Amino acid sequence: MRLGCRAGSGQATQPARTRRAGGPMFHNRMPRYDVLSQEAMATLDRGWRRLMTEIGVEFMDDRALELFRQAGQRVEDHTVFLDPDFVLAQVAKAPREFDVQARNPAHSIHIGGDSMAFGAVYGPPFVRQGDVRRDATMADFTDFTKLAQSFSVLDSAGGIICEPNDTPLDSRHLDMTYALQSLTDKVYMGNVVSGVNARDTLAMTEILFGSREAIEATPATISLINCNSPLRWDDRMLEAQFEYSAAGQPVVLTPFILMGAMSPVTIPAALVQQIVEALSGIALSQLIRPGTPVIFGSFLSNIDMQSGSPTFGTPESGIGLLCTGQIARHFGLPFRTGGGLTSSQVADAQAGYEALMTMMPTFLAGANWVMHSAGWLEGGLVAGYEKFVVDIEILQMMQAEFTPLEIDEASMAFGAHEEVGHGGHFLGAAHTMERFRTCFYRPLLSSSENYERWMRNGGNDANARAEGIYRKKLEEYVAPDLDPAIAQELQEYVIRRRAELGD
Amino acid sequence: MRLGCRAGSGQATQPARTRRAGGPMFHNRMPRYDVLSQEAMATLDRGWRRLMTEIGVEFMDDRALELFRQAGQRVEDHTVFLDPDFVLAQVAKAPREFDVQARNPAHSIHIGGDSMAFGAVYGPPFVRQGDVRRDATMADFTDFTKLAQSFSVLDSAGGIICEPNDTPLDSRHLDMTYALQSLTDKVYMGNVVSGVNARDTLAMTEILFGSREAIEATPATISLINCNSPLRWDDRMLEAQFEYSAAGQPVVLTPFILMGAMSPVTIPAALVQQIVEALSGIALSQLIRPGTPVIFGSFLSNIDMQSGSPTFGTPESGIGLLCTGQIARHFGLPFRTGGGLTSSQVADAQAGYEALMTMMPTFLAGANWVMHSAGWLEGGLVAGYEKFVVDIEILQMMQAEFTPLEIDEASMAFGAHEEVGHGGHFLGAAHTMERFRTCFYRPLLSSSENYERWMRNGGNDANARAEGIYRKKLEEYVAPDLDPAIAQELQEYVIRRRAELGD
Repeated sequence: MRLGCRAGSGQATQPARTRRAGGPMFHNRMPRYDVLSQEAMATLDRGWRRLMTEIGVEFMDDRALELFRQAGQRVEDHTVFLDPDFVLAQVAKAPREFDVQARNPAHSIHIGGDSMAFGAVYGPPFVRQGDVRRDATMADFTDFTKLAQSFSVLDSAGGIICEPNDTPLDSRHLDMTYALQSLTDKVYMGNVVSGVNARDTLAMTEILFGSREAIEATPATISLINCNSPLRWDDRMLEAQFEYSAAGQPVVLTPFILMGAMSPVTIPAALVQQIVEALSGIALSQLIRPGTPVIFGSFLSNIDMQSGSPTFGTPESGIGLLCTGQIARHFGLPFRTGGGLTSSQVADAQAGYEALMTMMPTFLAGANWVMHSAGWLEGGLVAGYEKFVVDIEILQMMQAEFTPLEIDEASMAFGAHEEVGHGGHFLGAAHTMERFRTCFYRPLLSSSENYERWMRNGGNDANARAEGIYRKKLEEYVAPDLDPAIAQELQEYVIRRRAELGD
Repeated sequence: MRLGCRAGSGQATQPARTRRAGGPMFHNRMPRYDVLSQEAMATLDRGWRRLMTEIGVEFMDDRALELFRQAGQRVEDHTVFLDPDFVLAQVAKAPREFDVQARNPAHSIHIGGDSMAFGAVYGPPFVRQGDVRRDATMADFTDFTKLAQSFSVLDSAGGIICEPNDTPLDSRHLDMTYALQSLTDKVYMGNVVSGVNARDTLAMTEILFGSREAIEATPATISLINCNSPLRWDDRMLEAQFEYSAAGQPVVLTPFILMGAMSPVTIPAALVQQIVEALSGIALSQLIRPGTPVIFGSFLSNIDMQSGSPTFGTPESGIGLLCTGQIARHFGLPFRTGGGLTSSQVADAQAGYEALMTMMPTFLAGANWVMHSAGWLEGGLVAGYEKFVVDIEILQMMQAEFTPLEIDEASMAFGAHEEVGHGGHFLGAAHTMERFRTCFYRPLLSSSENYERWMRNGGNDANARAEGIYRKKLEEYVAPDLDPAIAQELQEYVIRRRAELGD
């Protein structure tokens, strides 16, 4: 947890910014690291306009095609040849920033501007605990959800934090949604497997927040709509998008690009394609419901051209991430990218540096909605318990590092120099004593024990220490209060719908 | 190794930038990430001027005191109360940029501007190989020197890559210098334990490069002069500084600050102290020999205020590093900071993220001379073989990431989209086939093997794989040619001086 007294403002007992249960979300008030020149931006601008106009985008849903046709766009078969200026006019209808409510108002978040919200890993069918890699279960889903609730640095457990493979396929979205609603009091993500699942998520969200009106007034879910890159939006995702956008719930329109497979191998080509895909999806949302909130999505990495394997935390993905932030701001849209990505099988050195290779640019770019912030392993196939703790540490460190210094007269501590003199030490100085509890980031996982002490304590590496941390967090977990009447209504909904779905 | 075809320039068989034996050093042409406002810089400016004027700096060497006295500075006992404007006038005499020659001209380096040069870890008394941690030996020194020669991403083995504890204390600098001169053909660092050692280093460098004139014309060593922070320059370091500066060899004047111990706990205070220390040392070098090359040094981290242990790769050190770059540029000086620092005992996840927590800001700041770039473990007490490989991977990735994108019409690969269409894949596209060998960074250590393949190959984590890599590199090592007459002269010098020193 960041306990900041960098300012040395004399308020040593009142940390400048703490993240506690009920504390504020993170705002990134450091500069953005922009790497594209105006000329480069102009070149990319010509690129996406040409691609959108001449190659167009496929929408595998008749309602979508009809909306575009009615809006005067040329449609051939499933391909929409979009007029870039029409698209920009749609984009302009989307809010630049918006709020998403959590059932605990202290955990409600703001999307856009300098705010950054973080959710756990999304989608893995497997889990890893130490040396064991196995199918994920509902018990894992529950445990990860509890961990996401327990670490205040996370704003959301996400959605499919892992696939509960021991529950029936057609109704597991009900179990997951109820777990997210009851075991956390943070923002959660909507299920997007189908329109049916989206409607169930919305119905349960209406129960939790009181009414359809309540969630239309301030949205209460965020949903991930992935593009089937290159340049195709598939029917099931579009069905979910129709439901969520109609309900005024934000959707993250995300080109899913592993360069070399789903896009050309050149980064500029991937960036241009990403613009076409994201903006075309955003335009559709605005046709469904003008003004509905959207997030410019990016999931951009590359494949190993020797093996065809996806790779993460690569230099190319870092560059792409920085460019994506600059591009999204250019269009005035909140954006999603980043996380703690890695190709590694275990929470080793590779996992550590690859996760940070993704998370540092995430902060440099100021991403607004950050999925996969904790637990991602093995290219996203695995939710790792130990990796979850590694990522929480990285996230906390990044939030501390991206808190601006306050530099004033007091912070320069002239009096401490008068007290200590040349060649002395500041450990016992008054200036130090006033601040020592809160002046530096306090690690969760990292050890600075000397060798002898580290050996006495078992000689555990970060992976082994992470196990102790997540087990303790699970033991200490306390479920947030939930009105019993609401809980019962949600449970009844789950039971009824499960029966209707034949599970 | 970075094999860049990001530009998609059609020169797929001619990588945009490769690092090979004989290849160019790295130039960081990405933007600098400046985090200090003009107002903050003005506050820091007032701060260092006050500290320098009112508290002053101790120099534990009579020659230094006499030089300052002759230059009109107030000296009381060992303390020099420096006039900031006098100091800036001295700083202005130092070159903004300069060259350092290696005996292989292809490995000569430039210090300053957008150039970045990288050396291995410096100073550890211990080494770690896998589970074994033990005293470093001359065999370790030799092996690490060979590794530094083998990886083209390093510009220097550094100096005391580890302490050869099995050689006599008084003469080991001779053995180390000869190893650096003969086993590598890259720039090496000068010994600074005493004036005597510095004179030996210079004498051996004169032998290697032909004459005193040759190394005064273009320097051939870089030497690290550490401040005994706070605000004291000790006698032995000053003795070495006198030798190197008199010979026109660059010295790195480095405040050694663990905030909370060697400086106040507030970052601005540490920055102000760092300016006073570095500039006072630089002023001395200019008094010794006007125009002699210097490097603004920084070694800035913090201690754990609970245990008193030094910590590395912290958010505070990252912030300090970014500020340091901006400050050094403000004074028009090349600067040293950064590396692959960590407190971790082993090459685990913590080592991975802490090393990158230091190395990413090193690139964002554009540090010119980067010590500790490979092999640092356990707060610098240990040179780690596996960690060396982890760091090389990080360094290579950073160099790839900090190579600007070239964005032009061809890079947008419109033709590839025409070929592939919607929902297809680019693996076999002509655009891909022309570029696939060189388009993305190729990892040295990182694995993107899928689970089954990874298990078949032994289920090795990054630490285990790193062992295989460094052992293979040592097996494949070939010593660079050295004129036998020069080698013999150097050996004779070592033998003679060892006898004179009584070892």
